[in-house]
Amino acid sequence: MANSKFEYVRFFEQNDSLLPNTYIVIRIDGRGFHRFSQTHDFAKPNDRRAIDLMNYCAIQVMKDLHDIVIAYGQSDEYSNLYSRRSSKLASTVVSLFTSNYVMGWHQFFDDATPLQYAPSFDARTVCYPSNQNLRDYLSWRQADCHINNLYNTTFWSLVHDGLTEIQAEDKLKGTFTKDKNEILFSQYDINYSKIDPIYRKGSTILRLKREVTSISPRTGEQVTRIKATPTAVYDDIIGQEFWDQHPTLLQ
Amino acid sequence: MANSKFEYVRFFEQNDSLLPNTYIVIRIDGRGFHRFSQTHDFAKPNDRRAIDLMNYCAIQVMKDLHDIVIAYGQSDEYSNLYSRRSSKLASTVVSLFTSNYVMGWHQFFDDATPLQYAPSFDARTVCYPSNQNLRDYLSWRQADCHINNLYNTTFWSLVHDGLTEIQAEDKLKGTFTKDKNEILFSQYDINYSKIDPIYRKGSTILRLKREVTSISPRTGEQVTRIKATPTAVYDDIIGQEFWDQHPTLLQ
Amino acid sequence: MANSKFEYVRFFEQNDSLLPNTYIVIRIDGRGFHRFSQTHDFAKPNDRRAIDLMNYCAIQVMKDLHDIVIAYGQSDEYSNLYSRRSSKLASTVVSLFTSNYVMGWHQFFDDATPLQYAPSFDARTVCYPSNQNLRDYLSWRQADCHINNLYNTTFWSLVHDGLTEIQAEDKLKGTFTKDKNEILFSQYDINYSKIDPIYRKGSTILRLKREVTSISPRTGEQVTRIKATPTAVYDDIIGQEFWDQHPTLLQ
Amino acid sequence: MANSKFEYVRFFEQNDSLLPNTYIVIRIDGRGFHRFSQTHDFAKPNDRRAIDLMNYCAIQVMKDLHDIVIAYGQSDEYSNLYSRRSSKLASTVVSLFTSNYVMGWHQFFDDATPLQYAPSFDARTVCYPSNQNLRDYLSWRQADCHINNLYNTTFWSLVHDGLTEIQAEDKLKGTFTKDKNEILFSQYDINYSKIDPIYRKGSTILRLKREVTSISPRTGEQVTRIKATPTAVYDDIIGQEFWDQHPTLLQ
Repeated sequence: MANSKFEYVRFFEQNDSLLPNTYIVIRIDGRGFHRFSQTHDFAKPNDRRAIDLMNYCAIQVMKDLHDIVIAYGQSDEYSNLYSRRSSKLASTVVSLFTSNYVMGWHQFFDDATPLQYAPSFDARTVCYPSNQNLRDYLSWRQADCHINNLYNTTFWSLVHDGLTEIQAEDKLKGTFTKDKNEILFSQYDINYSKIDPIYRKGSTILRLKREVTSISPRTGEQVTRIKATPTAVYDDIIGQEFWDQHPTLLQ
Repeated sequence: MANSKFEYVRFFEQNDSLLPNTYIVIRIDGRGFHRFSQTHDFAKPNDRRAIDLMNYCAIQVMKDLHDIVIAYGQSDEYSNLYSRRSSKLASTVVSLFTSNYVMGWHQFFDDATPLQYAPSFDARTVCYPSNQNLRDYLSWRQADCHINNLYNTTFWSLVHDGLTEIQAEDKLKGTFTKDKNEILFSQYDINYSKIDPIYRKGSTILRLKREVTSISPRTGEQVTRIKATPTAVYDDIIGQEFWDQHPTLLQ
Repeated sequence: MANSKFEYVRFFEQNDSLLPNTYIVIRIDGRGFHRFSQTHDFAKPNDRRAIDLMNYCAIQVMKDLHDIVIAYGQSDEYSNLYSRRSSKLASTVVSLFTSNYVMGWHQFFDDATPLQYAPSFDARTVCYPSNQNLRDYLSWRQADCHINNLYNTTFWSLVHDGLTEIQAEDKLKGTFTKDKNEILFSQYDINYSKIDPIYRKGSTILRLKREVTSISPRTGEQVTRIKATPTAVYDDIIGQEFWDQHPTLLQ
Repeated sequence: MANSKFEYVRFFEQNDSLLPNTYIVIRIDGRGFHRFSQTHDFAKPNDRRAIDLMNYCAIQVMKDLHDIVIAYGQSDEYSNLYSRRSSKLASTVVSLFTSNYVMGWHQFFDDATPLQYAPSFDARTVCYPSNQNLRDYLSWRQADCHINNLYNTTFWSLVHDGLTEIQAEDKLKGTFTKDKNEILFSQYDINYSKIDPIYRKGSTILRLKREVTSISPRTGEQVTRIKATPTAVYDDIIGQEFWDQHPTLLQ
C-alpha cells in the first residue's frame, strides 16, 4: 500500500518550538472546576484534601519529568517551570498531571466522596527571557492567590454566618484589604495573617535535599543518603529571602 | 497588594490561534507505551482490552466536547477532528482523554491487571485547509495501521512459534506485503484479510443516529427517540464509499 | 577562527512557514504616505501619476516573481496573491516594490516634482484556505476603495469649492452613499458612477495574453507570439462576472 | 455597500508579535547580488563604493527609525538591532533600506555605472534573550566576514595573477588561515592584517556623539551642540574592549 502518497500531510504540522535560552512556564488550569468542586462537596473557602491532591499531582509530575525546576499552585491552577525547550511539553505535563489526579483521588478523599466524572485541565506554555520576568510571573500568581483567598475567606465567613451569597457579595463590593481584615477580626475573631500559609501563599514545590534511609539489599544494613525530593513549601516567593535561600533555582 | 505591578507578564503569552476555515486535527500519542504495555501484559500483536479502552476514551471525549466530528484511532494514538478553532484544544482534549483512561481502566482490565502507574499522552494540532487534505490525513493513518498490523501479526506469529525477536526481525527484513501474507497463510493458516477489521483498519468514532429508549419521569411511559451517539466502526476510510455513506462529515 | 562557537545563534530563528494549500496574500501599505503625498503635491482626491506609478511597481514585481497570480491596488496599498509558500515572501516583495517605486518615479512625475526623500512600505502575509475566503478578501479591499473614494471625491469637491477641511468633514458626518452621490450631482454636476473606474474600482493586475511582435535576431523577420503579460484592468472584482472571464485565477 | 460582510477576512491574519524583553535583530540580505555585482562591475574582492552605499543605507535607516541601537554590515547583508517589538519591523526596515539604496546609488557610482535594474533585499527578525546571545550573534557575523574576506582576498589575488577561477578554487581547497596568509605575504607582498579594517571587520553603525555646528536662524550666530549621529566604525566587536567603550549598547 502506497503510504507515501498520503505522507505529504505531515508538512501541514506547524513548527512551535520555543525560543531558546528562556524560562518555560507551563500553566495548568482546571476546566469547569466550579461545577467539579460542587459535585464533590469541596469545603469553602479552601478544601485541604483538594489542595493536597493538586500538590501530590505536581510532585508526581516532577518525579517523572526531571527537567522541571519548580512548581507553584493555587486554587485550581498549577505552573511548572522547565529549564529547556520542547514542543510537546504542555500536553505531556497536563496529561501526566490529570492521570495522577484520577489515580491519586482516593488517597485524599474517603469512600464517601468517590470521583464522579472525568476531570480535565488545560495547559499553555509561556517563555520568560530574564530572571526578573520569571520572578514577576510567580509574584503575579502569588499576589493573585492572596487577593482571592482574602476575599474568599471573608465571603464564606459571611455566608456561613447566615448571609446569602448575593448579600455577602454586596457587602464586600468596593472594600479594600484592610476592610476585609477588619471584618474577619472584629466579627469572626480571625487574624488573617495567622491563617495557614498553604491558603494564603499557595504551594511551591521544590527539589529539597533530604536524608533518605533504606536497607541495602546486598548487606542488609541501613544506608542513609541525600536525595533531592520534590517537596511542598508554603513560603513567600515575592520577596528576596526565598530566592537567597534557594540560589540554584535561577541560573 | 499591587498585583498590577506584575501583571505585565501576561503579555509574554504568544498568540497561537489556528487559521480559520480549516479542519483541525488533534493527534494524541501514548508516551512511553512500549514500557506501559509490557508492565500491564498487553497481548501481542493486539490487545483487545487496550483498544476498547482507547475507543472508550475517544467516545467519552466526544460525549463531552460536542464540536468533535470524527475520531480515528490505531495503536496508542488517536486523532480527533474539530470543526472550529481554539488555542486550548490540544491540552483540554488530551487531559480529558487521560482522565477517562485512568477512570475507565477497570472496566476493561480485571483485578489481576491493576493500573500500576500514571499513564500519559501528548497532543498536537494540525490544520487542513481542504476536504482532500483531511481525507489524505486519515488515509495516511489508516495505511500506517495496515502496514504496522500486518508486520506485527507476522512478527508475533513467528515469535509465538519459537523464534527469538531478533530472528523474527531478520526474517521479515526486506519482505513485501505479499511475502508476509504468504508466511501467515502457509505457516500459520491465517488469512490476513479475515482478521478482525478492528486490528486491520483501526477504529473510527462517528456520531451515529441510534434509537434510545428511556422511561419518562413524568408519565412513567417508555419513550423512544433518535440520538446521535459516538460509536466505533472499523470501516475502510480510504475509499470513497465511507464518505458517501456519511455525507455530513465533510462540509 | 572558531566560527562554530557562535553558530548556535542560528537556532533562535523561529520557523514562520505558511500553511500549505492556502492562498497567500501579501499586503503592502505605504508608510507615512499622508506626509509623502503632501510633500510631492499629489492631486486630491486622486493623483493619476501616483496610481500609475503604484501599478507600474506591481507590474514590475509580477514580471520578476512569476508565482504571483494577481495583484490588487487602491490608495497607497497593494495586495499580491501568491500560489505557494515561502518564509521570505513579504520582505522580498516589499523590497522589489520599493526599488521599482524609486527607480520608476521619474517616468510618472516630471522634473518639477523630484523625489525628495526615501519612501517606504510595510508588508504582511495572510493565508486564505478557500476560493470564497480569497474572493471575500479582494471584495473587502474593493468595497473599501469605493467607500473611501466616494468620500474623498465629495470631500475634496467641497474643499475646492471653498470650504475648510473641517467644514467639509462636518458636512459629511453621518451621510450615506446616496447623500454623497446627491451632493456630487446637484452641486458639482458629477455623476459618480461615470468617474473613471481606476478611481472607483482600484487597479487589478492580471497576466493577460497579448500578441507580442519582435524581430527575430536570426532571420530578421517579424515574429508574433502570444505572451502572458501583467496588465492593469479596472474591473469590478466583487461580482461573479470577472471570475467567469478569468477561470484560471482560482484553482 | 456592506463592507462588513467581507470584513471577517481580517481574522485570518496571524499574530506575529515578538517575545517582549528580548533583543530584536533584523537581518537584511541582498537578493541575487552575485548577478547584480557582475552587471554593475563591482571590484573584486571588495568594492568600496558598494560597501559605502550599504553603510549609507544603514545610516539613513537609523536616522529615520530612532529605536535602532546598532547596525552591522558585511558583504551584501546588514543586521539592525532594535530594542523593542513590532510586527511590521522587518518589512519597514527592508523597504526603507531598499529605497535609500536606489536613491543613493548615484552618490557612490559615477555616470558610467548607472543602476540597470531594480535591486531587492529580503529581511527576517530573530529575538535574542540575553546580552551574551546578542554578542554571539554579532560575533558570528564578524567571524563570517573575516573567513570570507581572507578567502576572497587570496582567491582574487590568484585570479588577477593569471589563474582561472577553477584553478584558484582548487589551490585554496583545504587550506587554513595561516596558509592563505602565507600565500598573500610571500606571493603578493600583502600583510593581511594591514588590509583596511572595513574589509576585514565589516562595518558597525553606532550613534556616536559628535559636535554639530549650525547658524542660529534667530541670532545669526554659530551654535555648537552635541548630537548622537549614526556613524560607521570598523572595529573588532568580538572582544570585550568595544563593549566597554560603548557601555550603553547593552542594557
